[in-house]
Amino acid sequence: MRQQYRRLLAMAATGAWARLPSYCSAHQHLPEVPAMPGDTRLFLRAIEGAGVGFEYAMFLNAAECHPLCLFQPGPYLEGHPGLTHGGAITTIIDGTLGTCALAVAGKVMTANLSIDYLVPVPLGAAVLLDGRAERLEGRKVFLSCHVQSAERDTLHARATGLFIWLDPTKHRTREEDGGR
Amino acid sequence: MRQQYRRLLAMAATGAWARLPSYCSAHQHLPEVPAMPGDTRLFLRAIEGAGVGFEYAMFLNAAECHPLCLFQPGPYLEGHPGLTHGGAITTIIDGTLGTCALAVAGKVMTANLSIDYLVPVPLGAAVLLDGRAERLEGRKVFLSCHVQSAERDTLHARATGLFIWLDPTKHRTREEDGGR
Repeated sequence: MRQQYRRLLAMAATGAWARLPSYCSAHQHLPEVPAMPGDTRLFLRAIEGAGVGFEYAMFLNAAECHPLCLFQPGPYLEGHPGLTHGGAITTIIDGTLGTCALAVAGKVMTANLSIDYLVPVPLGAAVLLDGRAERLEGRKVFLSCHVQSAERDTLHARATGLFIWLDPTKHRTREEDGGR
Repeated sequence: MRQQYRRLLAMAATGAWARLPSYCSAHQHLPEVPAMPGDTRLFLRAIEGAGVGFEYAMFLNAAECHPLCLFQPGPYLEGHPGLTHGGAITTIIDGTLGTCALAVAGKVMTANLSIDYLVPVPLGAAVLLDGRAERLEGRKVFLSCHVQSAERDTLHARATGLFIWLDPTKHRTREEDGGR
């Protein structure tokens, strides 16, 4: 894990890659959207306690629309005893592919995710998520993601994702229409 | 939400439906599996605080392998501002379909989930998950799930799931082989 993290930090230092911030609220990630009233929290940052939830660092090569996420599931992400819950794996895949789609197309919404769970991820194991933008078709962004062991010798899961670009023109039109 | 919950409790009172317990650890759900060392927690029960995380009640008609789950996402399950994270929706779908597959086939693992996110679920909205076992092929259990508004007038998401029955004979053989 430490070796893989150092390698990613070294990549970030070249300038082509950037380590992405990980805020507690969606509003901080998308400051143009007003903050929600009350205490909301980004799902990936909802679990209290050091090291027990989603422990991850995300890196993006914006020019190549290529995200990498180093992820270590904490003990509160349990599904079967000792193993990471499939929903937690999907959540970090959605986050990684969403980052990729955002880099490709701007503000997007997830329309479909399909995940093959191949080899269970033990709690505490380090895995690397490697996302790719496969193609663009109009407002549709097709992506894929591999979840591998940090040494890249085990493929734990693979996923495809379809994200829809939220056309700002259409949003503006609705607002101009008085929200109808 | 309250009306739908009362209807589900009335169904449970008929005897065909049972409200399922919701424990904090996987070991309590599967007591034949040894508890993990240290403080692990089932992912659906990982978020501290009243009403902020996965708020749900699950019901099962075991004879018909038919689960229903009434779910209200709390404010810590945020994806886009004010909306439920796709990963949180997938997590509750996985839990509902896993319950269904468990009733059909016994101990299972998720092999594939494919989710169409159709209409965003606002934080705090009540939704009803309706799972079905579609067919069995050897050790494969094919399932589907609809995520609807509590009044059943909006389809928020639909999913298919493939779960694999964990053959206890094969497990025993591996253990007898010394874990090879």
